[in-house]
Amino acid sequence: MPVGTQATVKALSPEELTDAGAKIILANTYHLYLRPGHGIVEKLGGLHRFMHWNMPILTDSGGFQVYSLSKLRKISEKGVTFQSHIDGSSHFIGPEEAIKIQKALGSDIIMAFDECVSYPAEYEYVLDSVKLTSLWAERCLTEKRGDHQALFGIVQGGMYTDLRERSAGDLVRMGFDGYALGGLSVGEDAGTRERIIKETVAFLPEDKPVYLMGVGRPEDILEAVMLGVDMFDCVMPTRNARNGTLFTSRGKLVIKNSQYVEDERPIEEGCGCYTCTHYSRAYLRHLYMANELLAYRLNSIHNVHYYTSFMDDIRRALRDDKLEEFREEFYKKRNGDSTI
Amino acid sequence: MPVGTQATVKALSPEELTDAGAKIILANTYHLYLRPGHGIVEKLGGLHRFMHWNMPILTDSGGFQVYSLSKLRKISEKGVTFQSHIDGSSHFIGPEEAIKIQKALGSDIIMAFDECVSYPAEYEYVLDSVKLTSLWAERCLTEKRGDHQALFGIVQGGMYTDLRERSAGDLVRMGFDGYALGGLSVGEDAGTRERIIKETVAFLPEDKPVYLMGVGRPEDILEAVMLGVDMFDCVMPTRNARNGTLFTSRGKLVIKNSQYVEDERPIEEGCGCYTCTHYSRAYLRHLYMANELLAYRLNSIHNVHYYTSFMDDIRRALRDDKLEEFREEFYKKRNGDSTI
Repeated sequence: MPVGTQATVKALSPEELTDAGAKIILANTYHLYLRPGHGIVEKLGGLHRFMHWNMPILTDSGGFQVYSLSKLRKISEKGVTFQSHIDGSSHFIGPEEAIKIQKALGSDIIMAFDECVSYPAEYEYVLDSVKLTSLWAERCLTEKRGDHQALFGIVQGGMYTDLRERSAGDLVRMGFDGYALGGLSVGEDAGTRERIIKETVAFLPEDKPVYLMGVGRPEDILEAVMLGVDMFDCVMPTRNARNGTLFTSRGKLVIKNSQYVEDERPIEEGCGCYTCTHYSRAYLRHLYMANELLAYRLNSIHNVHYYTSFMDDIRRALRDDKLEEFREEFYKKRNGDSTI
Repeated sequence: MPVGTQATVKALSPEELTDAGAKIILANTYHLYLRPGHGIVEKLGGLHRFMHWNMPILTDSGGFQVYSLSKLRKISEKGVTFQSHIDGSSHFIGPEEAIKIQKALGSDIIMAFDECVSYPAEYEYVLDSVKLTSLWAERCLTEKRGDHQALFGIVQGGMYTDLRERSAGDLVRMGFDGYALGGLSVGEDAGTRERIIKETVAFLPEDKPVYLMGVGRPEDILEAVMLGVDMFDCVMPTRNARNGTLFTSRGKLVIKNSQYVEDERPIEEGCGCYTCTHYSRAYLRHLYMANELLAYRLNSIHNVHYYTSFMDDIRRALRDDKLEEFREEFYKKRNGDSTI
């Protein structure tokens, strides 16, 4: 799903998102808590109404940004005290607060508050962290949420199989609506990541969605689906778009390259997105070189459409039991023509 | 008409422009000549196709930007040698080149190449400049343009009535499809400007459009219409939008002001634009404070809609012979509630 940090998916309107095939977006609890404040969003009718998005919204718990963006964190059993990255003001979020904030935002899928451990981390530290995350998960379940809100637990445990098993086991016993794999894509190598995904998925119930947070490149998503993952979110389609990097079935197209100066073709032949239907690579290159705001938008529309189509294709292949063939085809196209 | 410097009206798509009521846009010849180059635009099917805009386009002659943006200008009877503001490269544009470039761009209304005199300027200098502008206008008329392209002459003459008369007389004798008032809004006071507009309009034929270039605020437009002007272009609706300044019938609304933090109302009650139909002032303020790209767009949609509605209202008042009442009403609303 596309990520909308500030109650908007960068450069896109809600209508453009749905036209590009998006059916759910992610909003960052940490950012909305700090600005404009969940109280204001609630007062104005909740996040859906505030940002004019009528489809599902998933909010993260705020945990990840508290660890990655804020300063001077202090973790206790109660929760985390931190300083805002915007103005340095002091704040506290614990499991109860994380649920209260997400209740105020009114999102459809909400996430339990967890501790994100950096990588690499000592076994003892990760063990304590798993215990804390389980404790917090229990308190998240107890805290009153909106009737329509599904709550997902987040499995931690670093790169240690037995700690992943312990974390998953704790959460499954409590019973969540879905399970996320946290603490991945934090610097570990691809082999380790794939091993942890595979092992952790095996500890989770088959009838609940498994969500790999913050991943990723199309190939990462495809490999994770092969391992049993159901849901993904990532800033990559929109962030890359703003950097002029466009996804195609034959790989990435860097729009500023001079080879596109007079290129009349769309980004990808046959693509049905608004951008490919109406604009040439030459025009997109021109907008990008001229730093025009429309460049970010047109590029984002294409990349979001690429990702939603890619997920549609994966779903179809799964349904038809042809995922292996799809995967082969995917890499064959990628390795075919490197000049795009 | 909205101004699209770089083959795009900043932050807006063609569909948003037409939805907001725009029926014609202005593109800058100087900018498109330098980047991506008129040859490339022509090769890709002309400006309409390049930027996916199917309605009329007016191009300026490049003269104004040559004088205002470029460095090391050298003016001769042949034309102007100048250095690009982008990379310092040397270029030459004279009347023949200006028409050739606009022919390649394929716009619907094209402008004669003129000399823009700065303000204040000595009588003798302005006299020579009027002579040069008339000489260039003649050569613009002679140069082959596209069959569908209407050519407008530009009246110069500074703040001197007799030179305005001379310039207008020269151009009217040659016979253009329309006449623009150049060399205004260059630092003169409002009284002088209104005097020059009034005097110059009287020297021009009633059955041809009169175009006041680069103006302006709603009140400036209204006053100029009272004096007989038919056409305007300005960056103000979109530039102000990007600065968070929004036009309403009660005056300007500065969206970053803290009074809008929880304001559920649209920018203007009753406004039918996409922005006012779907978003609150509180949300627009949030986007603006978070530097979100969507802020520039939503603000621009409203401001362009404000201007096109304003022009619709003026046309209706003219048709019904009620311009004086319209004008009274306009200022009454403006002075009614200063808190918006």
